Formats: sequence, structure tokens, C-alpha cells
Amino acid sequence: MDAAKSSLITIAEKIDSVLKTFLEEESKKSSKISPIINNVLLNSYPVCFGGKRLRGAFAYYSYQMFGGKNEKEILKVSAVMEMLHSYLLIHDDVMDSSDVRHNKPTVHKVYERESDQYIPNYSNATHFGESIAINIGDVLCHLSLMNFTQTDFKPEIKITALEKIHRELTDTGYGQIIDCYGAILPDVHEDHVLKVHYFKTGKYTYETPLHVGAILAGAERNELRYLTEYAIPGGMAFQIQDDILGMFGDEEKIGKSADSDLKEGKKTLLIIKALENGNEDQRYIINRALGNELLTKQDLQEVKQIIVDTKSLDYSKEIAKRYMNQAKDALSQFNPRDVKKESLEFLNGIADYVINREV
Amino acid sequence: MDAAKSSLITIAEKIDSVLKTFLEEESKKSSKISPIINNVLLNSYPVCFGGKRLRGAFAYYSYQMFGGKNEKEILKVSAVMEMLHSYLLIHDDVMDSSDVRHNKPTVHKVYERESDQYIPNYSNATHFGESIAINIGDVLCHLSLMNFTQTDFKPEIKITALEKIHRELTDTGYGQIIDCYGAILPDVHEDHVLKVHYFKTGKYTYETPLHVGAILAGAERNELRYLTEYAIPGGMAFQIQDDILGMFGDEEKIGKSADSDLKEGKKTLLIIKALENGNEDQRYIINRALGNELLTKQDLQEVKQIIVDTKSLDYSKEIAKRYMNQAKDALSQFNPRDVKKESLEFLNGIADYVINREV
Repeated sequence: MDAAKSSLITIAEKIDSVLKTFLEEESKKSSKISPIINNVLLNSYPVCFGGKRLRGAFAYYSYQMFGGKNEKEILKVSAVMEMLHSYLLIHDDVMDSSDVRHNKPTVHKVYERESDQYIPNYSNATHFGESIAINIGDVLCHLSLMNFTQTDFKPEIKITALEKIHRELTDTGYGQIIDCYGAILPDVHEDHVLKVHYFKTGKYTYETPLHVGAILAGAERNELRYLTEYAIPGGMAFQIQDDILGMFGDEEKIGKSADSDLKEGKKTLLIIKALENGNEDQRYIINRALGNELLTKQDLQEVKQIIVDTKSLDYSKEIAKRYMNQAKDALSQFNPRDVKKESLEFLNGIADYVINREV
Repeated sequence: MDAAKSSLITIAEKIDSVLKTFLEEESKKSSKISPIINNVLLNSYPVCFGGKRLRGAFAYYSYQMFGGKNEKEILKVSAVMEMLHSYLLIHDDVMDSSDVRHNKPTVHKVYERESDQYIPNYSNATHFGESIAINIGDVLCHLSLMNFTQTDFKPEIKITALEKIHRELTDTGYGQIIDCYGAILPDVHEDHVLKVHYFKTGKYTYETPLHVGAILAGAERNELRYLTEYAIPGGMAFQIQDDILGMFGDEEKIGKSADSDLKEGKKTLLIIKALENGNEDQRYIINRALGNELLTKQDLQEVKQIIVDTKSLDYSKEIAKRYMNQAKDALSQFNPRDVKKESLEFLNGIADYVINREV
């Protein structure tokens, strides 16, 4: 586990450095367009940097695993995967009305405040902030894909990888739509939550970069299936653990406050199971807290206690562990051709790390 | 002009048919994911269909112009360009808070109302509608790009075209950001408006599909420059004329009400010039109308009269004509290699049509 964590940190630094180059080069060009555009990419830095780089690392190690040798070029692809992720995060933050990401104000919040400099107490400030954030997300989407087209891989391989990326991102959009419906559906059950995790984490966070790395190294279509068997349960475990940390983890380390999921009205597995197992009073307290912008510290504490008392926390931990074992089992079967040992160890280590991490 | 218009109608039917196939095939797949996803693509039909297909037609004729022979495949690309356009329109409609597009409710409005079925008088209905619309935009973006990767053109040519598409769409995002700032900047002048037209119409609507078609036909990089000399002034003329029609055209034909630009607070060249030339009273009336959701028919009539009286309407018409002549001059010089006559006539005819159209 520690080896995987330190590999992740090392690779994250390399990815950050390439991503920074991409953004700085574009900044030089785009800032000439208008003073307004000067700060556009700069304001995306807090969301672009500060992540764990799990997606970029997956692309990197998967490429290595299938015998890829061009480190410089695969790192560009890792940076592309992370820039694509920033595009989705910026849109997600708008949808979730999140104020903070990586301990910094989110992009739409930055621009909401920016409009205040021009029109104090601007009645449309929130809408202005959200509009600019939608655009900056779109800009990062196309900028990252442009950078991808400019990498040195063979055109036919790049096209195959792009076909995969766009298939997966289309599905990610469907997952996100299902997620948004969670806020208005009268009954949300475990299958709804797990479907969202399947699309947004199993397929998007895990499978997509693993497949892209493998494709760029020349993997055959049937070899990709082995990666999927690791990716889907691995991603599900990651997301369930992420929701546990979001509420029970260290706020400083997580980079957002422990009440933010509740305030957003996010129906995590923790919440769903507590509602299912809880008595009338407990359900009342949870439902009162969900989506409540004025949530107090005591409200949060009460909900956390209910999640513990109803065994919902234990249940989430158990499910996460089960998925992770499934992912590790898949890996132990995994030897489609002479797979590079270091990469396999990374995937194995990540599986343990995901369950035991604090951030 | 009539020949170009009828060519446009013929080609639009072909493009619509391919686009419909793309959406239907995807619908069959995606509707299995969840009942929620059943309607997602269906709800995008009003924005996906009903447009003039100018972008798709440009890609088609530019491909022909440079000797491209594969009609079936270029029509797919035309449909891709139009699906990409629908993605941007859906995001634009959120940013502009537009309720109507092509005489139908916009996507975010459809979902705003949809949430009402689950939670009557839902306080977050607008936000819910906008969130789903952002996602459907993203879905169409990736779906169209996936369809592009699956066309039969050579991989290296597809990569070159994609590099161009993403460079242009990144710049389109910058143009849209500058456009959004129009709402909060204290002084917006002609150069601001023309910069937005340059990015959003000259480069995005005209240059992008013209270049993409040419690239797919195997045009050289230096041949693209000739297209740019037509595209930029042609697009500027188109947009200025579009803003004139938006306010002075037939509401039924345009598909939106004549007061919508004013209600959105859109600072068109018509508005900018009227503010510049108007007296204090006239400026007061315009400023009171800009962004006023409660605008009456009489308010609209007053603003239109001021635009006429200050010669702002004449000015916009004059500028549009000047740009269009510039575009036509560029065409008359245009003979980089044995260009197909029919395509050249289309571009020429479109130039006239744009200035004389009613819709």
C-alpha cells in the first residue's frame, strides 16, 4: 500500500508539471485575445491542481503494463485525462452548487465575486458566475482534447483512444444525469446509488484511463476486458470510501467541509442505508438535514450518529471492502501477456490504499 | 441567391436524416441504462432539429470544393458539426436564460418543468433544469465527437481535423466568455461586439466547418487561408444581419420573440450604436429596456424606433453589407487549385442570401 501511495505521489508531480506547461503555453496565446481572457486559465488552477491524479496514474501504469515505452508522451496523455477531469469537476461544482474545492473557492464562486467588482450587489451574480464556469469547463474540454491530438502516438491509435474516451464521457454524462435525478426522485434506493457509482467512478475514473493507456500501448480489444474486471469493482469501492471520508474524514485533508454532501442533499449509500434501517425519528432527522443550507454542527453530528447507530457506516465499509476484494481477485487472474510487474503492483497497492486512505 | 437557398434546403434534409440516425441509434443503446435516460436524447430534438444547417453545409461544400468524393461520409461529418452546435446552443440557452428555441421550450426549461412532476413548486426547479441541460450539452459534445472518430476518413486526416475543431472550439469558448462579460462591463463598444462576432460567428460558424471539410478532402494548410478570407467577413456579416432579424424580423419565422435579445440584455451592434448616437432620453429608454424581464410591447416598439431614428439600423445594415462584399471579393480571388464550380457558387450565393434573408 505505501509503495503504491508513494508511486502515486511521484507520478502526480510529473503529471502536474506537464499540465502546468499545457496551461502556461495556452495562457500565453489566449491572454492576447482580450484582458478578460487573461485570467481565465489562471482561475482554473485551483481545480486543475490539488487532486490525487489517480486517473492520470492509471493511464500511465496501464500503458507501461502493456509494454509502452514512451514516458514523455504518455505523461502528456495523463495530463490530458486530468484536464478533462477538471472540465467535468467545474461543471459538477455548478450542478452541486459547491463553494469550495481543494480548499479554494470553486470557479463559479470566483466569477460570482468578480461580477461584484463591476456591479456591486449584482442581482445576476450567481448566474454570471455559473455561465463563466460552464464556458471554462468547455474550454478545458477542448483544450485537453487538442493537446491529445498533438501527442506523438500513431494516428490510428489516437483515433481508437478518442473513440473510447468519447464513448465513456457520453456514458459519464448519463451517470451524472441519473445522479442529478437523485435530488427529485421520491425514493432513491441502493441500486440507484450503485448505478451512479458504476458510471461515474467504475467506468469513468477507473476504466477510461486504464483502457486509454492500454490502447496507446497497443493492447488488443480482448485484453481490455481484463482491465474492466479490475476497474468496475475498484471504482465502486473507491467511491463508497470517498463518501465515507466526505462525512467522517478529516476536513482539512479532504479539502471540503464534512457537511457539504448533506447540504447538497447528496443521497450517498450511507444516507440511503440509514434511511432504510432507521426508525421514524431517525428518518425525520436525516430528511430534515438533506439539502438544508442552514445545517448546524449539531445537525451534522446527529446524522453521523444515526449513520453509526443504524449500522449504515459498517454496511458501506463492508460493501467497499467486498468490491475491493473483487478487484484484487481480478488482478490475481490477470496475465494476458507478459505484464509489467511494477504496474500490476501499483494497481494492487491502489486497491489497498483506496480502502485504508485518509484522503 | 435562390440557388444557394435551395441547395441549403436540399443539403439540410440530408444532414437531418443522418443526424436522426445518429440520435436514434444512440437512443436505442442509452435507453437501456435507466428509464431516466429514455428521454434525454428525445428532449434534445427541438434544439437538434430546426436550424438552417449552415455549418453542416459549409463542411459539405468545402469538402466537395477540394475534390472530396465520399458523399456518405462527409454527410456524417456535417451531422457531427450540427450535433456539436446543438451542444453549444444548449449551454448558450442556459447562459442566456432563453425560454424558447426554434419555437419550442429550451432544454433547461423542459427539465425545469419535469422536476415539477416530482416535487410540485420545487424551489430548486430552475437549477435542476440547468444542471440537466449542462449534462445533455456535454453528452452531445462527446456523442458527436465519437461519431466523428467512427467515420471512414484516414486516421491522420481525422486527427488533423480534430486538432482544428478543438482549437476552434477552445477559441469559441473565449468568445462566449467575452460575450458574457458584456452584461457586466460598464462600457461596451463596437470593438467588443465585433470581437465576439469574430470568434463566435466568423471563426466558429464559418471558418471551422469550411476548414474541416477542406482538411478531410486533403487540402493543404496554405489553402485553408483562402477559406479564412471568405469566412471571417462572411461570418461577421451573418451575425450582424442575425441581430437585425432578431429584432426587426418576423417572430414566427425566426422562432423566437423580437424582444428576447433586449430581455437578455444582449448588447448588439444595433444597441451599442443607438446608445452612442442617441440623446440622453433615448439612452435612458434603451438602458431601462436592457435586461428587463418585464419589457412591454410598447417598450420594444420605442427601442426599435430609437434604433431607426439614431441611424443605428442603417449603420448595422451598412457594416453587414461591407463585410459581405469583402467576403465575396475574397471568393473572386479564390482559385487555389481546380476548385469545383458548384461549391464556389454556393459560397457566393450564401453571401447574398445572408444579407437578403428573412430568417
